[in-house]
Amino acid sequence: MLENLKKEVYEANMLLPKYNLVTFTWGNVSGIDREKGLIVIKPSGVEYEKMKAEDMVVVDLEGNVVEGKYKPSSDTPTHIRLYKEFNEIGGVVHTHSRWATIFSQSGRGIKPYGTTQADYFYGEIPCTRDMTKEEIETNYEYNTGEVIVDSFKELNPGYVPGVLVKNHGPFTWGKDPHDAVHNAVVLEEIAMMAWNTEILTRYEVNPMPDVLKNKHFMRKHGPNAYYGQ
Amino acid sequence: MLENLKKEVYEANMLLPKYNLVTFTWGNVSGIDREKGLIVIKPSGVEYEKMKAEDMVVVDLEGNVVEGKYKPSSDTPTHIRLYKEFNEIGGVVHTHSRWATIFSQSGRGIKPYGTTQADYFYGEIPCTRDMTKEEIETNYEYNTGEVIVDSFKELNPGYVPGVLVKNHGPFTWGKDPHDAVHNAVVLEEIAMMAWNTEILTRYEVNPMPDVLKNKHFMRKHGPNAYYGQ
Amino acid sequence: MLENLKKEVYEANMLLPKYNLVTFTWGNVSGIDREKGLIVIKPSGVEYEKMKAEDMVVVDLEGNVVEGKYKPSSDTPTHIRLYKEFNEIGGVVHTHSRWATIFSQSGRGIKPYGTTQADYFYGEIPCTRDMTKEEIETNYEYNTGEVIVDSFKELNPGYVPGVLVKNHGPFTWGKDPHDAVHNAVVLEEIAMMAWNTEILTRYEVNPMPDVLKNKHFMRKHGPNAYYGQ
Amino acid sequence: MLENLKKEVYEANMLLPKYNLVTFTWGNVSGIDREKGLIVIKPSGVEYEKMKAEDMVVVDLEGNVVEGKYKPSSDTPTHIRLYKEFNEIGGVVHTHSRWATIFSQSGRGIKPYGTTQADYFYGEIPCTRDMTKEEIETNYEYNTGEVIVDSFKELNPGYVPGVLVKNHGPFTWGKDPHDAVHNAVVLEEIAMMAWNTEILTRYEVNPMPDVLKNKHFMRKHGPNAYYGQ
Repeated sequence: MLENLKKEVYEANMLLPKYNLVTFTWGNVSGIDREKGLIVIKPSGVEYEKMKAEDMVVVDLEGNVVEGKYKPSSDTPTHIRLYKEFNEIGGVVHTHSRWATIFSQSGRGIKPYGTTQADYFYGEIPCTRDMTKEEIETNYEYNTGEVIVDSFKELNPGYVPGVLVKNHGPFTWGKDPHDAVHNAVVLEEIAMMAWNTEILTRYEVNPMPDVLKNKHFMRKHGPNAYYGQ
Repeated sequence: MLENLKKEVYEANMLLPKYNLVTFTWGNVSGIDREKGLIVIKPSGVEYEKMKAEDMVVVDLEGNVVEGKYKPSSDTPTHIRLYKEFNEIGGVVHTHSRWATIFSQSGRGIKPYGTTQADYFYGEIPCTRDMTKEEIETNYEYNTGEVIVDSFKELNPGYVPGVLVKNHGPFTWGKDPHDAVHNAVVLEEIAMMAWNTEILTRYEVNPMPDVLKNKHFMRKHGPNAYYGQ
Repeated sequence: MLENLKKEVYEANMLLPKYNLVTFTWGNVSGIDREKGLIVIKPSGVEYEKMKAEDMVVVDLEGNVVEGKYKPSSDTPTHIRLYKEFNEIGGVVHTHSRWATIFSQSGRGIKPYGTTQADYFYGEIPCTRDMTKEEIETNYEYNTGEVIVDSFKELNPGYVPGVLVKNHGPFTWGKDPHDAVHNAVVLEEIAMMAWNTEILTRYEVNPMPDVLKNKHFMRKHGPNAYYGQ
Repeated sequence: MLENLKKEVYEANMLLPKYNLVTFTWGNVSGIDREKGLIVIKPSGVEYEKMKAEDMVVVDLEGNVVEGKYKPSSDTPTHIRLYKEFNEIGGVVHTHSRWATIFSQSGRGIKPYGTTQADYFYGEIPCTRDMTKEEIETNYEYNTGEVIVDSFKELNPGYVPGVLVKNHGPFTWGKDPHDAVHNAVVLEEIAMMAWNTEILTRYEVNPMPDVLKNKHFMRKHGPNAYYGQ
């Protein structure tokens, strides 16, 4: 069943190692068939190199496995919570991609510093609040979705297609699984650049001596250039 | 028409992923035929893997499409503004390459810290001023060229073949499209090293204990060396 | 003898360059046959590209070579010390992987900042104390194992499968050689992210102007979007 | 003439892109035949992809071209100065490798923070003093060698096989061209790790909440583990 969606979800999962967003099996992509109310998601703990489209697992919106020889990703309840709340989305991605995770670990959202972010995200990419002891100890993965939803009370998930889970890592979503991965790649780029922007802004040092600057430019470009000719 | 220039512009565009300057389609290269007053530029939104030389778009200096089945890059008006002002240049590149974009996002030019920069750029690589509300809301892309031109009132664009657009990213240029890409690669290298130079200059810590330093060097190089023999 | 373990140790060693954990020959993996009391370890100074399974060296728990045409890794006494103390482990890895080494050089353990670490390590990954002059000058490599063991007086090596040797680099272990390499990869990821988390937490700067943020998002996503269509 | 040395110098030059030490043609390796008093060096401005062993240039110790259809590297006078002063060396390398150049641009030597450095360099890797206006304007490349030699008045070039030229980049040397490249790779690794060690040492932040740490470890490793099984 859902062979096309399985193929789509499989291919989207395979983009995670291609774009260098995962180490080992630390990531998962899902897609939803809204009409049937069924989700297709990566199996748990299967290596990317060995994974096939037919290994994808089908679950319903209560988390029951409808088809599949493997267990669904441990993060399935988080995906489900997002699909239930964000009606327009068709795909969800979770990774521990480095720079987005660094912001998650710092407990900070990513402010908009440049147009690369503004091309995809309308304003700050939020970081979730701390989960309570109760939320962590019972239904942890479903509650991970709950704190994400909490962060979007006043945000449009179509305008901000991603979030940082505090002390954990990013989730992104999109109109389909491929689009959700696209946003995961963008988030990682943005996070890397935001990190370095924040640090840089505090520092300034003295430039090189003028005479050395002149020498180097002129030996390649001046009227008597002799370098690399 | 302009088949040679199309090939040249196509090949220069394909260097952007090769040198790791772009994610997805976040970059574009153009070239100009000064005699005919025509510009050849990358089509908008076409993936690098699928792009062919014949997909390049020909536009005139008013931005009218003269030939091409695709729309020209959204940044075409910026390229046009630069070709109009800087008479010696034959190619223009725009990317969101990471380290140059980080400086753009910090709103800072790149001071000359070393000979790598001085070999190509004569002094600081400027960062443009903030655009006004009006400049952003009307003819945004053309005005992006306008603030670049503003930054070069007292600079020679042949001596400083690139600029950082504030909160956006770098533009570079050169005598032809390939040369403009060459300068984009150099700018990215320079930016990475300048960032790290600025940060480093503030820090210093204690070295390792002498006895450990001596042990390691001597077990490989001393008269009684026994390591890796 | 021990042909299976040799193959296993050889393959685990070859994962070090695959996961970008070593430069030249700066790393080694060993495995133990607990029943026979014999260790199989990488030969000293042999390049990864030329190494074969049959080049692995067999040593006993006193460090005597039992089989092998090469000398065993200079770090063999450290591996032995760990096997003697940590009864449950079946494989040991040593590298100078960049980010873990950076923490070693800073003399600091890696605190748990996120779930990536908590998935594998229960709490802080410790950094060893300074070695004494005597420990360095006599039986240096065996004493390197000694200071590791010292760090685990109150830690469970099954729960914290790795350590940072001060001013040196990381050792990790696992139930077999492959598992020990797996933990070495995880440690390097964790170290990279912890470094950047620690620095980031101190910094915050101003975001981009709202009007520019709006323009970029709306030209791609607003009702009058015209970018990359 | 000197066909073997040409081959050796050519192969050593080709290691520079392999080890990611150069952008474009920003690096060069030479070797010396001490008996004949002749140096073989990379030609100026030739791309690595097109270079052949027979393109290497032979010069004498006064810098006269003895054989070769190309001009020798612009940095030849620096190499010559080093061969004249350091009698034991057989190969010299110059690059603008990123991390070593960052230290050069900061005007700082690399202190020994760990055993990776101590395995190859005995103590701090020095950074040269500022060159005078006269040294820069006349015989700049030869004087670049002069300030290097100045830095080694009290250092053994066999024990410290490299240097950082202020505001420029690194030179390394060795018993032959291949060994000099080996040291260039090591220097770059050391520089990257020293940079990050220096920055890290200043920072420390709070770890993640204990309850989250426990949850993640126990869902994979506790008696009721359910993650990735």
